[in-house]
Amino acid sequence: MSPTEKSEPESPHELPRGFRFAGATGGIKASGKSDTSLIVSDDPCVAAAVTTTNQVFAAPVLLCRQRTPRTTCRAVITNSGNANACTGQEGLEDAAAMCEQTAARIGCAAEDVLVMSTGVIGQRLPMEKVRRGIDRASESLGNSERDFLSAADAICTTDNFRKTASATFRANGQTYRIAAMCKGAGMIAPNMATMLGVIVTDFPLSSELAQSSLRRIVERTFNRVSVDGHTSTNDTVVLLSSGQGDWVTSESDASLFVETAADVCLKLAKLLVADGEGAARFFEVAVRGAASDADALSIARCVAASPLVKTAIQGGDPNWGRIVSAAGYAGPPIDVERMSLLIEEHCVFRDGQPLAFDAADMSGRMKRASEVKLELTVGDGPGDSKYWSSDLTEDYVRFNSLYTT
Amino acid sequence: MSPTEKSEPESPHELPRGFRFAGATGGIKASGKSDTSLIVSDDPCVAAAVTTTNQVFAAPVLLCRQRTPRTTCRAVITNSGNANACTGQEGLEDAAAMCEQTAARIGCAAEDVLVMSTGVIGQRLPMEKVRRGIDRASESLGNSERDFLSAADAICTTDNFRKTASATFRANGQTYRIAAMCKGAGMIAPNMATMLGVIVTDFPLSSELAQSSLRRIVERTFNRVSVDGHTSTNDTVVLLSSGQGDWVTSESDASLFVETAADVCLKLAKLLVADGEGAARFFEVAVRGAASDADALSIARCVAASPLVKTAIQGGDPNWGRIVSAAGYAGPPIDVERMSLLIEEHCVFRDGQPLAFDAADMSGRMKRASEVKLELTVGDGPGDSKYWSSDLTEDYVRFNSLYTT
Repeated sequence: MSPTEKSEPESPHELPRGFRFAGATGGIKASGKSDTSLIVSDDPCVAAAVTTTNQVFAAPVLLCRQRTPRTTCRAVITNSGNANACTGQEGLEDAAAMCEQTAARIGCAAEDVLVMSTGVIGQRLPMEKVRRGIDRASESLGNSERDFLSAADAICTTDNFRKTASATFRANGQTYRIAAMCKGAGMIAPNMATMLGVIVTDFPLSSELAQSSLRRIVERTFNRVSVDGHTSTNDTVVLLSSGQGDWVTSESDASLFVETAADVCLKLAKLLVADGEGAARFFEVAVRGAASDADALSIARCVAASPLVKTAIQGGDPNWGRIVSAAGYAGPPIDVERMSLLIEEHCVFRDGQPLAFDAADMSGRMKRASEVKLELTVGDGPGDSKYWSSDLTEDYVRFNSLYTT
Repeated sequence: MSPTEKSEPESPHELPRGFRFAGATGGIKASGKSDTSLIVSDDPCVAAAVTTTNQVFAAPVLLCRQRTPRTTCRAVITNSGNANACTGQEGLEDAAAMCEQTAARIGCAAEDVLVMSTGVIGQRLPMEKVRRGIDRASESLGNSERDFLSAADAICTTDNFRKTASATFRANGQTYRIAAMCKGAGMIAPNMATMLGVIVTDFPLSSELAQSSLRRIVERTFNRVSVDGHTSTNDTVVLLSSGQGDWVTSESDASLFVETAADVCLKLAKLLVADGEGAARFFEVAVRGAASDADALSIARCVAASPLVKTAIQGGDPNWGRIVSAAGYAGPPIDVERMSLLIEEHCVFRDGQPLAFDAADMSGRMKRASEVKLELTVGDGPGDSKYWSSDLTEDYVRFNSLYTT
């Protein structure tokens, strides 16, 4: 697959004002592909970040946490090809040095630069190459579509295609822009599916509201796709707002921004699931009737993560016992006698009883669906939620068995 | 692999007195293999059971729960080829009918019979075939090695070989016997890895102590092997004690029994992991330095269940970042600066810092090991625990994609 086959938008992104972008090659990757991505805000901007919950987190994650939320951010520097994780004190010094060099090149304080890394774990950054990448990126900054895409390319590792999305919305009589990029190689995820993302907007958010909005956006999008359940040491999503004038500080005034940004990020999240030569078929798990939305999410996540459900989806096998029983061990209470399951809108299990169905016909529907829909009712509570996942294939195993050696 | 290649003990099992065994064929399986297993206690015996934690549990599981612990048990009847799960009220009636017919044939009350089922979910039991199997089994009961093995064969589904183990121990100047069988098809687990097991002994346990001892035994053995994390609707382990005379009622007096039975069950648990054409390589995860044994167990389980760790083991890939990071998202607190990892007794990560090692040499060691040893230190706490797992292979995906259709 060509790097852009799936991801090229039909029309160019409408980029928010005030940002410049660059992708460059410092030489970190054996492949010679670009490895340094730089996003610069012309003026001090608001920055928020959501980072991995893994207790083993990479050096750049620590810096991002310390420096967000913030109102004076000027840049995000990202290297791909090396995660700078499990690298101890030296790793922290290397991450700080990346910020210092970026700051020196664009003229700001080092603390106003955020840093992300993705790639191999447990090896020190090749700092000479990293420095070369930063120098080259800082010399090629621009605000064109091409520059944006170049920055999006440079954060990729095992991704088969770059992942970008954008949208505009109107509020208070003005048009605002949201553009976003992310990386992550879905199912194949040899490097633990590190997920990096950057969202830029010109909607004027206060730093506190940027932080809370980003949490809500991530919770509804990137946190609802199943890669392989292996939370990376480096996962980071950054939100930058260059908006000038009166900052929006109330959640209600930001709701349209959150809705629109969540749409953008859900597109990216689904591209994450779609990426990877391992993944052949996608599925959506919709759970309703749980005691709460959180319970519904836990159940949906458990079904989406089950290897037996994933292999059934792979084979187009309407083996509904696997789905129902995965819900049964998820944890939240369910009411078996009110439990029902639809596969591709066809009911196979109703009120705790199996229904007769044509398995061959159902298998055909599943194999033809671009996204297999599973709708599971677990009781008569008010909680519902959705989760997206991809199947488990022989290719996943093959790729992941042959990574470092 | 022949059905007995891996499992045949070097010497016959020493069977506890007071039990008779039979395996028979009622015709439930298309393959024509035996499908009905009966274990009878000549006299009323003590029975305990541990069953699945899945909220979606099969009809026989409900009956086992209602009838244990108990001092008047006379039999365990098991059918394979149909799980009698997700079958509603009719399923409960079928399970009860299995007990009633068994009771009628051996001459006891239906309540003194326990029942287990394993096989396809969501289909009613073919009761005519089930009844035929019960009749035939009750006519062929015996207390020989052959009868015991025949009963162990008849509980199998997708198992590649029968699983039995036994041991003796001395207490109070007497020799006691423990013999056990289980079924479960490790990694390939097309039918959700339903795990059934029966332990018989002539050690005289009170019913309460039998129940608490069985919980301890299962917790240390069957609950420490990773199949694919998909808890079945039917998992059941039964303990029967035919011991006469003064019942042992104190935990300290039962400790030697628990130790010996745990050794027996750990052998069976490892056979579960070893079974399945999908599984090619096994590994042990030993965690120490956690705040508690329970924390260590959570971390070990998380490492053992990670698809990225499993595929690395499959490929003989010393990709230790996957192991360390899996510990990081397990949940219990860890101290990264005191974290160390040994693979096959070779340290690759010490006190939070990577160590240089020869990856090709390490890969060779991993590929040659019959059981790859991972030793992970996560802090300086007193908690330690072990967990056993098998790798994730392309065969696992292939088999599980092609099950019902």
